[in-house]
Amino acid sequence: MATDRRTAILEGAARVIARRGVRGLRVEELAAEAGVSTALVYYHFKDRAGILRHTLEFISDRADRYTAEAEGAEPDGPYDPRLELERSLLLEFQDLPEVRENSTAWGELRASAVFEPELRPDLARAGLTWVHEVAALLAQACPAAPAPTLTASAERLTALLEGLSTRWLTDALTVTHARALMREAVGVELGLLHRTWTPDA
Amino acid sequence: MATDRRTAILEGAARVIARRGVRGLRVEELAAEAGVSTALVYYHFKDRAGILRHTLEFISDRADRYTAEAEGAEPDGPYDPRLELERSLLLEFQDLPEVRENSTAWGELRASAVFEPELRPDLARAGLTWVHEVAALLAQACPAAPAPTLTASAERLTALLEGLSTRWLTDALTVTHARALMREAVGVELGLLHRTWTPDA
Repeated sequence: MATDRRTAILEGAARVIARRGVRGLRVEELAAEAGVSTALVYYHFKDRAGILRHTLEFISDRADRYTAEAEGAEPDGPYDPRLELERSLLLEFQDLPEVRENSTAWGELRASAVFEPELRPDLARAGLTWVHEVAALLAQACPAAPAPTLTASAERLTALLEGLSTRWLTDALTVTHARALMREAVGVELGLLHRTWTPDA
Repeated sequence: MATDRRTAILEGAARVIARRGVRGLRVEELAAEAGVSTALVYYHFKDRAGILRHTLEFISDRADRYTAEAEGAEPDGPYDPRLELERSLLLEFQDLPEVRENSTAWGELRASAVFEPELRPDLARAGLTWVHEVAALLAQACPAAPAPTLTASAERLTALLEGLSTRWLTDALTVTHARALMREAVGVELGLLHRTWTPDA
């Protein structure tokens, strides 16, 4: 029950942030959104910074979950790390309310960290985890490439995804075009890795 | 004189946005920052939306200017479109107060457009102009590549720059590392263009 309410507060925080931004987040509004008292919000998360930190974690976990679900739904076939990588990156561009809400809230927390330095360590940690996940998929696709090269490639792909995401969410790009650019970027990066590290394959 | 005050207001708006964000922008504070009356702010820019739109244009022009100045300062040498492209993209990553303020304000206007749809058309127009400038430099570097391919490449490079910029401004990346990733991205994109369209050159 305590866990249910805790989750309800975090779901509410993600909704409020995606609707009005981090700067629009008031604890009173969040409590009303989650259907709990402000005291309970403070009990679970201590203060506004605690709410933001845990919302960041919640959004990050939720993205992993819809990623994993969609993977489970794919038809069986030989495991292909390149397809796996494309799939995991492209899942961030879907016209589904949950994905849009998640991307909006994540982008807004990132943008807010420019003005709220206390958000930066958690954001940097979440970003680093993501870079390592992408680098691991690149390593499966091109095992001969050295770790720093794979990491740099993963940093570019994830930073590109964040840049494209903001353009998508502000209608500067359609979801279809954002997906096409992202897919090509995977091809460009993997192409370079293969030519450099497995030229005879 | 009217022009001076108009410029002073726009400079003040860029400073306030870079310091506290778009959501923190109050016309009273902006007037105080620029040393003018609120009436004069409204006279020049009509309303808050007008201020934001013109600040966007001002920031964009200012970036073109410091870009052009730095180019003028470079030693003479044979014109190399690839170096020119690198230079124009890397100028966005400099630990100088003006560059940092400009990048912060631009990123914040972009992030705000997720929540303020009236900012989107001007932002999309500025973004498109930038993509075309980068595509034109890519075309000089690889004249054989068709326009849609060059545009897609320019879209990736500019979106990557925006993603890296937010990471830099939130201390997730050093300026040196952001520059290295950006320079490599130019190499990766141009490498692909050359292999595909001028393989025998």
